[in-house]
Amino acid sequence: MAMDASEETLRRAMADKQAAVDAQGKAVRDLKVSGAAKAEVDAAVEALNALKLEKSSIENQLQAAITGGAGGLSRDAFRQAVVNTLERRLFYIPSFKIYRGVAGLYDYGPPGCAVKANVLAFWRQHFVLEENMLEVDCPCVTPEVVLKASGHVDKFTDLMVKDEKTGTCYRADHLLKDFCKEKLGKDLSMHAEKAAELKNILAVLDDLSAEELGAKIKEYGIVAPDTKNSLSDPYPFNLMFQTSIGPSGLIPGYMRPETAQGIFVNFKDLYYFNGNKLPFAAAQIGQAFRNEISPRQGLLRVREFTLAEIEHFVDPEDKSHPKFGDIAHLEFLMFPRKEQTSGQSAKRMRIGDAVSEGIVNNQTLGYFIGRVYLFLTQLGIDKERLRFRQHLANEMAHYAADCWDAEIECSYGWIECVGIADRSAYDLRAHSEKSGVPLIAHEKFSEPREVEKLVIAPVKKELGLAFKGSQKNVVEALEVMDEKEAMEMKSTLESKGEVEFHVCTLGKVVTIKKNMVTISKEKKKEYQRVFTPSVVEPSFGIGRIIYCLFEHSFYTRPSKAGDEQLNVFRFPPLVAPIKCTVFPLVQNQQYEEVAKRISTSLTVAGISHKIDITGTSIGKRYARTDELGVPLAITVDSTSSVTIRERDSKDQIRASIEDVASVVKEVTDGSSTWPDVLWRFPAHSHVSTDE
Amino acid sequence: MAMDASEETLRRAMADKQAAVDAQGKAVRDLKVSGAAKAEVDAAVEALNALKLEKSSIENQLQAAITGGAGGLSRDAFRQAVVNTLERRLFYIPSFKIYRGVAGLYDYGPPGCAVKANVLAFWRQHFVLEENMLEVDCPCVTPEVVLKASGHVDKFTDLMVKDEKTGTCYRADHLLKDFCKEKLGKDLSMHAEKAAELKNILAVLDDLSAEELGAKIKEYGIVAPDTKNSLSDPYPFNLMFQTSIGPSGLIPGYMRPETAQGIFVNFKDLYYFNGNKLPFAAAQIGQAFRNEISPRQGLLRVREFTLAEIEHFVDPEDKSHPKFGDIAHLEFLMFPRKEQTSGQSAKRMRIGDAVSEGIVNNQTLGYFIGRVYLFLTQLGIDKERLRFRQHLANEMAHYAADCWDAEIECSYGWIECVGIADRSAYDLRAHSEKSGVPLIAHEKFSEPREVEKLVIAPVKKELGLAFKGSQKNVVEALEVMDEKEAMEMKSTLESKGEVEFHVCTLGKVVTIKKNMVTISKEKKKEYQRVFTPSVVEPSFGIGRIIYCLFEHSFYTRPSKAGDEQLNVFRFPPLVAPIKCTVFPLVQNQQYEEVAKRISTSLTVAGISHKIDITGTSIGKRYARTDELGVPLAITVDSTSSVTIRERDSKDQIRASIEDVASVVKEVTDGSSTWPDVLWRFPAHSHVSTDE
Repeated sequence: MAMDASEETLRRAMADKQAAVDAQGKAVRDLKVSGAAKAEVDAAVEALNALKLEKSSIENQLQAAITGGAGGLSRDAFRQAVVNTLERRLFYIPSFKIYRGVAGLYDYGPPGCAVKANVLAFWRQHFVLEENMLEVDCPCVTPEVVLKASGHVDKFTDLMVKDEKTGTCYRADHLLKDFCKEKLGKDLSMHAEKAAELKNILAVLDDLSAEELGAKIKEYGIVAPDTKNSLSDPYPFNLMFQTSIGPSGLIPGYMRPETAQGIFVNFKDLYYFNGNKLPFAAAQIGQAFRNEISPRQGLLRVREFTLAEIEHFVDPEDKSHPKFGDIAHLEFLMFPRKEQTSGQSAKRMRIGDAVSEGIVNNQTLGYFIGRVYLFLTQLGIDKERLRFRQHLANEMAHYAADCWDAEIECSYGWIECVGIADRSAYDLRAHSEKSGVPLIAHEKFSEPREVEKLVIAPVKKELGLAFKGSQKNVVEALEVMDEKEAMEMKSTLESKGEVEFHVCTLGKVVTIKKNMVTISKEKKKEYQRVFTPSVVEPSFGIGRIIYCLFEHSFYTRPSKAGDEQLNVFRFPPLVAPIKCTVFPLVQNQQYEEVAKRISTSLTVAGISHKIDITGTSIGKRYARTDELGVPLAITVDSTSSVTIRERDSKDQIRASIEDVASVVKEVTDGSSTWPDVLWRFPAHSHVSTDE
Repeated sequence: MAMDASEETLRRAMADKQAAVDAQGKAVRDLKVSGAAKAEVDAAVEALNALKLEKSSIENQLQAAITGGAGGLSRDAFRQAVVNTLERRLFYIPSFKIYRGVAGLYDYGPPGCAVKANVLAFWRQHFVLEENMLEVDCPCVTPEVVLKASGHVDKFTDLMVKDEKTGTCYRADHLLKDFCKEKLGKDLSMHAEKAAELKNILAVLDDLSAEELGAKIKEYGIVAPDTKNSLSDPYPFNLMFQTSIGPSGLIPGYMRPETAQGIFVNFKDLYYFNGNKLPFAAAQIGQAFRNEISPRQGLLRVREFTLAEIEHFVDPEDKSHPKFGDIAHLEFLMFPRKEQTSGQSAKRMRIGDAVSEGIVNNQTLGYFIGRVYLFLTQLGIDKERLRFRQHLANEMAHYAADCWDAEIECSYGWIECVGIADRSAYDLRAHSEKSGVPLIAHEKFSEPREVEKLVIAPVKKELGLAFKGSQKNVVEALEVMDEKEAMEMKSTLESKGEVEFHVCTLGKVVTIKKNMVTISKEKKKEYQRVFTPSVVEPSFGIGRIIYCLFEHSFYTRPSKAGDEQLNVFRFPPLVAPIKCTVFPLVQNQQYEEVAKRISTSLTVAGISHKIDITGTSIGKRYARTDELGVPLAITVDSTSSVTIRERDSKDQIRASIEDVASVVKEVTDGSSTWPDVLWRFPAHSHVSTDE
């Protein structure tokens, strides 16, 4: 495969930057050895760190060019390399493999499970603890009434078609999409007009009704892919796993399709727990279930997955956020509605500007967009392949005020990983209505407020005389007039003595006379305001984020001998499944004892690690640990000191056995960077012949 | 309610010990002020700590006497007090409350959720990380074939009876149990013989078959409790929630009733991941589901719960454990089979002795019993109300080698919270057979071993002549002889020329002559041993452990004014939902700013905390935070220093604002105890009038 121009350029830039980093690294060490002043050394270190950052940015661009830029084949090959490594090293495993598996169900194996636990721990730290959220933990089994209220029983469906002979089920939109893509890709002699039609279908696919989808399937003669049999008309299939609660079979239930409902139904208690004060946020991490018709895209579309959801309840009249200033300066790729509909691309914006210009609906929504950006990039998601895309008007539910998806680019394209929606008062209102329990908030005024209230007082006696059996309809129609209408009637009655009035429940116009109704404005004292809070909901698909993280962290490099490509995951220590490995250089009792002493000191320091005492060559052991994304490797090659090797630079330092644990700790807990320690310890120049 | 003798005695002992603690505390402070030598101060502190420990032990006994010792009413009243506090402070909430809830489903509210997260984090630290276990994370949705192999589809049932008119379902054993208990409790004039019969039923209840249960229900005339209608015969009801995977409705599935199966089906990959070496353990934390017929006992018997399970795979011929020595000295309450059947009570034993005396089957099982003991007591479970009970022969599955339950005593009695079973090779064999994938291990010999193998070679020609149509049965019977039998036949044939031989498939004795069979021993070289590993399974019901922890941590004390009882949870910092609260003494901008500065320094130190700036009296705020089990409270009463109050002793020290975070950190991360810091900082003697 030929290297394209931008890749070539980036590879050159990368080599130059690496040389600059090396030179500056040497300068730092020389300064230190010569006993230069601290300020001078610090300045040199700062310059070194800046160079490393620049190098890392070029590296990311290069990676993007290789995986994304170079067209379909490269993407597929890259994905295959990642997935092979992930499956071989048990990051994940198709569930129930010995029974030939079940589509859309995956296990996390040991390193994947550790990565997931780290991601969730960081989520809890970054959102629940730092923002003082109220975390809850609700069951997956949910009675039907709750999901009836939320709309899931009626509307959580995909359109399905069946093979008319075998009964095999397919997602109708998938078949149409595959058809259009294949035609566009293969039939190069197609008329421009026809091509435009197919492209348009791909663009509006999500909006097509069952009838429209069915018509297109018929028009294009699309048949069942496996048998070529004809297909049924599309019909909705509910994506919830259904079950039955209790032994009687009389209480229908579902496995929850999201965790949010558990929070909404607890609103009243949580509001009380928060001292009856708004705003506050509740959060939940847990399993959710969607019985996908035909799961595809590996870990991205599965039937059971971990969600982490936040419901931030806020006064609809004041959606400012006290900490908005902390994140207003953040600048990242945003893809507002306007840019999408006018065919432009995503643009770099300050989130502060996006809110002040009204592109993002309010500060609270903007604050969460900023916090999500920090969360994802601190995990190791590449900022160049992360964008916030605003929902188009037709994508949003009618009640939503605004909605942005954090989309991450991976080999499958741009994938929605976090949804951040202002859902207004919809969910609380729906559960209030269904349950009869008011889910509302109060704002107590510090001083009672004087308000003018419209008072409409129909004089029933006069109305009865005039309208007899229709009196009730007229009274009701008078009472529901809005302020404008009522004040107009009042002035007409005062000037003309009577007025024509349309009573819609009677379907006719009646004449209201002055003695039939009194309209006035009265001053009243109000002590509080009662309202249904709005909710801003950031919802995280943890599995999708982790899969994208795998792709963004993966790269290959040639082995020393050049005979094979070695796989590396450049996980930040925060995410890495274990923080370091310990290798005795050769199988020997003394070295193994040192390794065990180091292991004990690492355990005391709370650092997850693993000893590898197999007799495999040290190069192979490095390759093995790089493939798991372990940031540091300790090689025991003497009984007094050891080497510590950093995964990506392959730099090694020599440290005494007493210092090892504290060095590993400071690098992996983020209190130092590797360049920091690099110049504090002697470099280890011996390079194993194996690597 | 009258105080019983032991409670009275304990209360006196408690008061004496408290006085001794106070005196020693003063002595320590005096020594410090007088500038005594470090060694002298250290000795005094050690004495103080010893006294505090003794006090805590008396406190536990007193608690046990109050809650457990004083009969039914006290237990119920105690439970009611705990449950009221738990529900009011949202430790947990009946799920879907606004829709009148669903029996057996509970939410953890914010403090409960934090306690649960802490318990799980400690479990992961104590087991997965410290023991280098392979953690996996498998889906809850499970296809039928897996649970068919495990036996759950056929055998995971409870016996149910139905109200013959209304169809309401009841657990048959519950109805019989309630009947016996009520009779025994109310009918005091009952004959001793009859009482013995009812007591015996209670003892053997779990062993009764459907027929036996049905007969007893008929005999005693037990009817439906709500309607007094007659009941159906008992029949088995499968406790799994059933569902259907995919849109066709053709793949039956269940919500997993335990997490263990996900590990067993992955054995082959995990064994490979571990370098094809035994022993190793895999672990999983996750939701499990049991569709209980009629859930009772609050949080103890629920329909969805979190399990944490370990499957430790070990060579059946070597169940020693390399770290057994680390825990062999531990001594705790054990309740072996012999003591149970002979009517004795649980006894205090060293686990090392229990294994060496053969009471516990093997070291690996013993090691896990010891580790479970450490886990539970470090969480705060009272060692006096924790015992390990061995399963009786009739409680264990036929394949199990030995099984012990960690039982915790709470207001519901002794509750099984952790099961630790040696399940031999059962599960792996079952999945090997069903899936056709061998789930086995190999032991490669370092040198090939010469083994003598028995070779039985029937001479089919001669046997055919002698036995005609029965030849096949005779051949098979000869081939399956064991070594002893075969060698006896060989010697008889050699001495007498023929031998009488019983062929069980023919049901008769035949005569075998010397020319009909050759029996010999041949030497063969073997290079490896192939076997199905045994599995030792510690399985933790996290919700049950947490509920017992709530009860063991709960106590009440009179308010300063004596007009009400205040509730306290004495959670260790490890478990506490948050580690400290920060209170400005009065509502005042300066104090609030100090509180915010302290909050920032606590966040930097990674300490979960909450600021309470309500104008409520400081005593009420202390009471509120004690009720959540928060170990430390910081009161801002000046702009330079603050007080830190410990929850249980109510001791207060004064510390500078700069020191606060580090003091809280060392006490809550366990690097110091409260008595340690108590003498390093000046005591704060001001006591709020509110408390």
